[in-house]
Amino acid sequence: MSLVVVGSVAYDGIETPHGRVDRILGGACTYIALVASYFTTVRIVAVVGDDFAPEDEQLLLARGIDLEGLERVPGKSFFWQGVYSADMNDRTTLRTDLNVFADFQPKIPANYKSDPYLMLGNIQPALQQSVRAQMHRPRLTGGDTMNYWMTPQYRDELLSTIREWDFLLINDSEARALSGENNLKRAAAKIFELGPRTLVIKRGEYGAILFRRDGYFMVPGYLLEQVFDPTGAGDCFAGGFVGYLAERGFDLDNGHVDHKELSRAVIYGSVMGSFCCENFGVDRFRTLTRQEIDARFHEFRDFTEF
Amino acid sequence: MSLVVVGSVAYDGIETPHGRVDRILGGACTYIALVASYFTTVRIVAVVGDDFAPEDEQLLLARGIDLEGLERVPGKSFFWQGVYSADMNDRTTLRTDLNVFADFQPKIPANYKSDPYLMLGNIQPALQQSVRAQMHRPRLTGGDTMNYWMTPQYRDELLSTIREWDFLLINDSEARALSGENNLKRAAAKIFELGPRTLVIKRGEYGAILFRRDGYFMVPGYLLEQVFDPTGAGDCFAGGFVGYLAERGFDLDNGHVDHKELSRAVIYGSVMGSFCCENFGVDRFRTLTRQEIDARFHEFRDFTEF
Repeated sequence: MSLVVVGSVAYDGIETPHGRVDRILGGACTYIALVASYFTTVRIVAVVGDDFAPEDEQLLLARGIDLEGLERVPGKSFFWQGVYSADMNDRTTLRTDLNVFADFQPKIPANYKSDPYLMLGNIQPALQQSVRAQMHRPRLTGGDTMNYWMTPQYRDELLSTIREWDFLLINDSEARALSGENNLKRAAAKIFELGPRTLVIKRGEYGAILFRRDGYFMVPGYLLEQVFDPTGAGDCFAGGFVGYLAERGFDLDNGHVDHKELSRAVIYGSVMGSFCCENFGVDRFRTLTRQEIDARFHEFRDFTEF
Repeated sequence: MSLVVVGSVAYDGIETPHGRVDRILGGACTYIALVASYFTTVRIVAVVGDDFAPEDEQLLLARGIDLEGLERVPGKSFFWQGVYSADMNDRTTLRTDLNVFADFQPKIPANYKSDPYLMLGNIQPALQQSVRAQMHRPRLTGGDTMNYWMTPQYRDELLSTIREWDFLLINDSEARALSGENNLKRAAAKIFELGPRTLVIKRGEYGAILFRRDGYFMVPGYLLEQVFDPTGAGDCFAGGFVGYLAERGFDLDNGHVDHKELSRAVIYGSVMGSFCCENFGVDRFRTLTRQEIDARFHEFRDFTEF
């Protein structure tokens, strides 16, 4: 079941206590698409400049990702540079160059439009809204966003955008900012009033919570012996979550919702986020296999079952 | 299967965003004993002053706790006063008066000595060591400690104490301080070299991890809609953990260790820690029933199973 992914395809400069890279393929759309490609057919909508390297295009093609919606325009690709603190719980952005992304107006290719699954990576809400409007009633629409779009200037735009989503996938500080509630259970109750009937709150190393009006599911974060680079882990969570649902042909409107499928999607999200941290940027996905993914899924069952 | 609990019986002055109490029964031994009494026979070893109130004695007696080892001496009971931050993730100690606790030399009554389970609440390691030495080879010995005893002045005393324990139950910052490792998996590996073969790391609202050399078990923290007062939650975790093991007659030396029993003990610990936060100090345990406890245990299964 095909999945359309929208967001940034970018280059990142990353420094962690374990080393640094000056320029590596990154961006929310890249991470989500690479990860979801382990589960389903993926088509992307994004923009890059004329500096987009053939070997990076090759990485995406090798994972079977449809690049028809990857626009190429004169100029440079989005560039982000950041440095992590010693314990990697904080990071400082050193540079954000929007470059060709500044004028991005997503255009959905005709043969993407009937795809049933749509994942909107974190970009300006108006763009996310325009993408959904161009699709023919996707079966499941979800997205990510960030604190910046919750400030007074963009808040109304964000609210009218997420009102149409089936699921919202944000981190704990974003859930608090969006709802004005510090307690996550009360925050979830407020967010349900904004539209999405499914809310996934990512908690970094502490795992994730999936909320529905009638219950919730929680998982602790995978214990890595070494977190090499957490860049992209949240987007990889999203890719695993929506990728698994697409693979299963999951349908929220189908009378009976199988909550265990949503829970398993959270586990696959957690699995993919954990793999992401094992190497710089997207490097882990150059070698990762579906077999390793499923083995870690079962590991989650082993260390949480009682 | 009887459990002997050693530690402080104290009075606390507590202020949280939800209110304040000037003086309420507290102390690690009190919390551990109250909680463990839902699972097994409990006998305590502690000291109080002549200000120890008959109604507080009554609360302990009503839960069937054996007070033969509760020494009463002239003077005032241990007193602690603290105030929590708005989000309750931090607390500031305003006052610590050791009072009669300063000269505490635990003496184990003769008919406690053959009890199979021993839980050493956080007190000076030398006192914990003396208690264990007075017991006739308990089947299972475990304890809690804190950062203070890991400083150079007490470190050797602490190390020679925990070397004899079957399990160590500490929080994440203590595990990092004890091991010198920031990563919890590596911290656990170092701590196993210090003696205990079972390590439980408490992570506050984020749950807990139980480590054994051959694997681990993780559980997220229970989501409360309101944390009223977190005082004592870590001790309640300990009481639920060891109380359940005592109820089941659990034996680590019994060739085949049933790891699922250890996992279930972690769940009961989490359950009891969560109830503790629902009211001031020990107040929740004035009304809590075993039926409510078991219902929450099953709730944990519902929101973690996939």
